[in-house]
Amino acid sequence: MEQRYTIGLDYGSLSCRGVLVCAEDGCLLAEEEFTYPHGVLYDALPDGTRLPRQWALQDPQDYVDALLHIVPALLGKSGIRPDRVAGLGLDTTASTVLAVDRERAPLCQRPEFYSRPHAWPKLWKHHAAWREAEELTAEAKESLDLARYGGAVGAEFLPPKVLQCLREDPEVFDRADTFFECGDWLTSLLTGHEVRSGATLTCKALWSPAVGWPRGRLFEQIAEKLAFRSGVRPVVAWPGQSVGTVSPEMARQLGLSPGTTVCAPQMDAYAGLPGSGVSGPGILSMMLGTSNAYLLLSREQRLVPGICGAVPDSILPGYTGYAAGQSSAGDTLKWFTENCVPSAYEQAAREQGLGIHSYLTSLAVRQKPGESGLIALDWWNGNKSVLNNAGLSGLLLGMTLRTRPEDVYRALIEATAFGARRIVEAFRQSEVDICSVIASGGMAMKNSMLMQIYADVLGVPIAVSPCTQAAAMGSAIYAAAAGGIYRSVVEAVESMSPKSVRSYHPEEASQAAYNRLFSEYMALHDYFGRGENRVMERLRFETADIPCN
Amino acid sequence: MEQRYTIGLDYGSLSCRGVLVCAEDGCLLAEEEFTYPHGVLYDALPDGTRLPRQWALQDPQDYVDALLHIVPALLGKSGIRPDRVAGLGLDTTASTVLAVDRERAPLCQRPEFYSRPHAWPKLWKHHAAWREAEELTAEAKESLDLARYGGAVGAEFLPPKVLQCLREDPEVFDRADTFFECGDWLTSLLTGHEVRSGATLTCKALWSPAVGWPRGRLFEQIAEKLAFRSGVRPVVAWPGQSVGTVSPEMARQLGLSPGTTVCAPQMDAYAGLPGSGVSGPGILSMMLGTSNAYLLLSREQRLVPGICGAVPDSILPGYTGYAAGQSSAGDTLKWFTENCVPSAYEQAAREQGLGIHSYLTSLAVRQKPGESGLIALDWWNGNKSVLNNAGLSGLLLGMTLRTRPEDVYRALIEATAFGARRIVEAFRQSEVDICSVIASGGMAMKNSMLMQIYADVLGVPIAVSPCTQAAAMGSAIYAAAAGGIYRSVVEAVESMSPKSVRSYHPEEASQAAYNRLFSEYMALHDYFGRGENRVMERLRFETADIPCN
Repeated sequence: MEQRYTIGLDYGSLSCRGVLVCAEDGCLLAEEEFTYPHGVLYDALPDGTRLPRQWALQDPQDYVDALLHIVPALLGKSGIRPDRVAGLGLDTTASTVLAVDRERAPLCQRPEFYSRPHAWPKLWKHHAAWREAEELTAEAKESLDLARYGGAVGAEFLPPKVLQCLREDPEVFDRADTFFECGDWLTSLLTGHEVRSGATLTCKALWSPAVGWPRGRLFEQIAEKLAFRSGVRPVVAWPGQSVGTVSPEMARQLGLSPGTTVCAPQMDAYAGLPGSGVSGPGILSMMLGTSNAYLLLSREQRLVPGICGAVPDSILPGYTGYAAGQSSAGDTLKWFTENCVPSAYEQAAREQGLGIHSYLTSLAVRQKPGESGLIALDWWNGNKSVLNNAGLSGLLLGMTLRTRPEDVYRALIEATAFGARRIVEAFRQSEVDICSVIASGGMAMKNSMLMQIYADVLGVPIAVSPCTQAAAMGSAIYAAAAGGIYRSVVEAVESMSPKSVRSYHPEEASQAAYNRLFSEYMALHDYFGRGENRVMERLRFETADIPCN
Repeated sequence: MEQRYTIGLDYGSLSCRGVLVCAEDGCLLAEEEFTYPHGVLYDALPDGTRLPRQWALQDPQDYVDALLHIVPALLGKSGIRPDRVAGLGLDTTASTVLAVDRERAPLCQRPEFYSRPHAWPKLWKHHAAWREAEELTAEAKESLDLARYGGAVGAEFLPPKVLQCLREDPEVFDRADTFFECGDWLTSLLTGHEVRSGATLTCKALWSPAVGWPRGRLFEQIAEKLAFRSGVRPVVAWPGQSVGTVSPEMARQLGLSPGTTVCAPQMDAYAGLPGSGVSGPGILSMMLGTSNAYLLLSREQRLVPGICGAVPDSILPGYTGYAAGQSSAGDTLKWFTENCVPSAYEQAAREQGLGIHSYLTSLAVRQKPGESGLIALDWWNGNKSVLNNAGLSGLLLGMTLRTRPEDVYRALIEATAFGARRIVEAFRQSEVDICSVIASGGMAMKNSMLMQIYADVLGVPIAVSPCTQAAAMGSAIYAAAAGGIYRSVVEAVESMSPKSVRSYHPEEASQAAYNRLFSEYMALHDYFGRGENRVMERLRFETADIPCN
């Protein structure tokens, strides 16, 4: 039998990573990364137009340029003939949403809208629609059980972002033919067909196959611009299903064969579950990156307070998928190294030939748990699980005149581990089984201090997937199912996903120390996160929230 | 009449500053600074012997070297004939305490004790005797109203530091002939007589002229090594009184005339009140430095909860002196610039020819109150007033991925201003009048953003004393009274202290914004400082407190 291959593309917040793998055993033949030239637009549009606080936009041309760069690069590097590529799958951040005109061109690419922030894609971490999210929460709870969305409509969901556009720039809203999830927009570019990802619609847009959209005045205002608007009946596809084939024009540009299957897009974190080797219930997939994602499958659909998802078929068919997350993890460490590390440390790192993260880790690893006397709340970008509140912010406590940068660095790592434990405990309290953990992502492979801290804090062994691109791998696995190589996604995972290479086991003394620190974390978590003192939200939103345009 | 002069020496935590002034009008003729070569010994003794956490020692030779350097330098710079110097006064940090042998030599200078931490002077900010402070509080409250010490025996007081030595290194305790406040030790070196400062004994050692030492088992254990131990009857002198004249040998070493009057030592902050021009009640003297000190006079002796002092005659005769403080202010900003500012900022500051503090200020001054969304508790070195708890630590809240170094820098300044307001409100609540504020210290002259923030937060106008060395000036003023130039310290202040040069007035909009932020500060202050959540103390003391020796 002829050997076949698939391509997986993982669109993250700052770059897109692609892999080309063997569809038989998942063997990695080529990988490629493309960093978005425009990154995240936090402060201003490319033309200098200022953005208010809490905005986070992207340039859609970056997504297209990633595609045009990565696919030919993968084919070139691997030397695989295009006709051997059985399928292409992709995953993206979500909800990352853009307004397009009738020709499916993003409005921001029209000169008349170039200076209009609402014409640009709103990245998942755009939190400026938090007021709209609160209003939609109030409305949606009339017709919908919000418990499976973590109790509220998140500011990161699609509907608040669309509603914010209607409110603040109705002209953009009117000119929009529809609003696309960026993954659906990309597959529509590839195939020429408008197909919507069922996983994203159900998890990030409050839509459901049985009921459709929630009822209510606010949803009616935006319904005409959403998928399934009047007169348009797009297809819904689920992860592992085909949304069509690459159009001749796109095939030419990408160097693929026309007719190559395109798989329904998945949300980036969700793709990591099959990508890290999970094919059934009870194994927590923990993806460590700029933000952390926690995925879990279960045969039953239970409500876990504060955990989004609990949506059937969203990750693997036949299972309820649970998704939890921390909005900032690697991002917080990156923020720290960019804003809080003195030049003496940068110099010492250089002298030792280490990156700044490695250097700080080499100092922090000498400490015992609790030695620095610091504790942090890991909410630099709000709290996704279990509080689902983008208005929360970071906290650091315990500083003295002897506090050193490595102390803070370790406290920030510990804080994300405590946040992870809070999530694990939520599952346990709802009797959703967790037997083991598989970690993936660059930090899982690179930072053994961090992994040991996670094992000590969680109190369970953690296996590390060797797959550094778990999401891209997951997309390649989905593509193998969509391309007909396997009869199911589960079969594809079992054949293609790499086996774990290293395990971390909790150390008793550290575990005990971290149990004490975790109870301190929880006291602060509940005090600031459960409404007893809403100082974080007041500080973020009451003082300097300037409307856009 | 012949023009006469006085010398004032201000022994701080990191350096000693000296002034030589005209005793008629206070005109500054020369100043000189001597930075202690050994600074503060936090981590290790000079021979490498490690120190546990919360220790802070000094090298007594640094004090002597400061004297030997500064006095001749002042005489040399000013060109004043030694016989025209009417007196020399000095002030020191307190309680900074050292064990001496029969020859009044510090034990740490004996080779056999060189490696013994308890043989070295314990600086005021040595907090490792906090357990002894708690025990002494329990005992002293039986025979003493602790309210005038802020409700508790502080870890910074003299008795806990002596008791810690007895407990942890009885050999040092036994070999000590007595324990000296460093100011009393210095005047005994100058004059050859053992005289004790009444101000320091009453404010920092729980002694009182009427009652003597508190009763109790613990005090009995250390009594033999304190001032007024059995068989020794040293003289007590008060600020503005003479303790004797410079001995011929010291006069030779210093270049002074033998017989020059030496004034009783004062505590550094207390000397700042006359030095900044306050000669009567109702005017708050605010000295901004590594730590902040707040001094106030009143005709009545009222108890102000959380404010130390309320001790008659401790600052000016005839008045009750109140002393409040913040254990870390400039120190926190210094910590920040040394540990938390990235190289890009250091470089930008260099390119603009600015110091790092000026550069950060130039960025922070553009912000409106509350714009950064940050708030801090200013407890990097514990809280002196009004909580009197050295076990508290710093807190920073509100960080996001957009938080920049200048945001944190401004939040730290605002936090010390909120701490100052808490002190002012304590006085007001006890009906101790504050009509106006006079600020002194380097930061008051140098940083107008900081002064405007203080005015906005306190809601009162603040006059800035042009005297950059208020404490040293105060010591020179005291020396003029001791030297017989004036009949009273009040007269000396009125003639010698410089008039204020600049005033800051609260701005209405900022004041309103800071009123809101202050209520947030107070909620956090009480939650973490009043026992509702003792996480700070648990983190500091439960985890890694290793006993010494």
